[in-house]
Amino acid sequence: MTLPTVAVLGGTGHQGRGIALRLGRAGYRVIVGSRDIGRAAAAVSEWPPTTGRITADGYDGAARAAAITVLAVPFEAIDALLDGLRSSLSPGTLVIDVTVPITFGSAGASMVVAAEGSATEHIKARLPDGVRLAGAFKTLPAHLLNDLDRPVDCDEFICGDSAEARAEASSLASAFEGLRPVDVGPLSRARSIEHLTLLAIAINRKHKVHDARYRVAGL
Amino acid sequence: MTLPTVAVLGGTGHQGRGIALRLGRAGYRVIVGSRDIGRAAAAVSEWPPTTGRITADGYDGAARAAAITVLAVPFEAIDALLDGLRSSLSPGTLVIDVTVPITFGSAGASMVVAAEGSATEHIKARLPDGVRLAGAFKTLPAHLLNDLDRPVDCDEFICGDSAEARAEASSLASAFEGLRPVDVGPLSRARSIEHLTLLAIAINRKHKVHDARYRVAGL
Repeated sequence: MTLPTVAVLGGTGHQGRGIALRLGRAGYRVIVGSRDIGRAAAAVSEWPPTTGRITADGYDGAARAAAITVLAVPFEAIDALLDGLRSSLSPGTLVIDVTVPITFGSAGASMVVAAEGSATEHIKARLPDGVRLAGAFKTLPAHLLNDLDRPVDCDEFICGDSAEARAEASSLASAFEGLRPVDVGPLSRARSIEHLTLLAIAINRKHKVHDARYRVAGL
Repeated sequence: MTLPTVAVLGGTGHQGRGIALRLGRAGYRVIVGSRDIGRAAAAVSEWPPTTGRITADGYDGAARAAAITVLAVPFEAIDALLDGLRSSLSPGTLVIDVTVPITFGSAGASMVVAAEGSATEHIKARLPDGVRLAGAFKTLPAHLLNDLDRPVDCDEFICGDSAEARAEASSLASAFEGLRPVDVGPLSRARSIEHLTLLAIAINRKHKVHDARYRVAGL
């Protein structure tokens, strides 16, 4: 089976870098999409070598060349990104939302309100017809993702707008050593996943750890 | 150290029964508070024997006699319950909210909106001054709670309006074999805990299991 080509938009960020590198190590062809191709190419050239080839391109070029496009930009940047991508995401493409819609204030981390219910549903409302969507990788600590030799050793919650979208996202997630994907159903479950991330961040801060994440018992 | 007396209001319900019996087994003196004392007394008389004595009383009598009052009624019944309890909860009492503010519709389980942010904060706004509050036991499956010989084998998330309230609730939670309490901070974290419950229910239904619950890795 040939592995699909994956675009990781915002792939030079902390979360995106970890996802791109772990996919590259699992043999995926990865294109890091960035606003600044030159800077992204320079960053990628310094990354450790991987089995799958990792290159850099603009958002548009990366998305056009990929069967799966991972959105790893900050949530605040999503609207502008999607506006610019409307013609580059063709029907059938699987978009994977990994955004964590959280802000940090004096009372600590809090959830960004999304009129659609969640970041993932906010994105769904802005995707061209026929483009499929899954939410995944939201509860994986970026710190751990970038510690490439360490198995992630946790469960990861996958929601999506169809069983097929969830299965494809789960298959991608399985490339991460030590990860068990857990299909939690439709996009309406995304807000709960986002709250798990918020709670993990609160646990990190309170208990002075870096990698709080979840395992589901009884499954 | 003498263990505090614990009132479990709504203790004849599925969740409340499991909590009351596990506390009784750990040696706590438990008073099951119910609208219908006679029915509660009949139910309790058929429960398996425990080290700690378990008796039944009305809501008011149970709350007056206890240092810790667990609210294990359905969330829809909370407002009426708290209205009736205003004079029976004395300052210093620790109230523990275990409600799960979830409704079941055609699209499956969904979260009940609470203007205060969460069920726990909704309750906080209705407690007399000086009464302390923690949220706990929200993600413990009732099914598992009632399987008394089985260790619960999971983490449980504790929020509260002071570090002391959280420590006391954690101490109570530690009476459950196989449970690790995780202090997640102030009451503003309650909605995230409630979303964990919602997600666990979704996982139960989707994967045809009964006891989905959480462990925090990296802690």
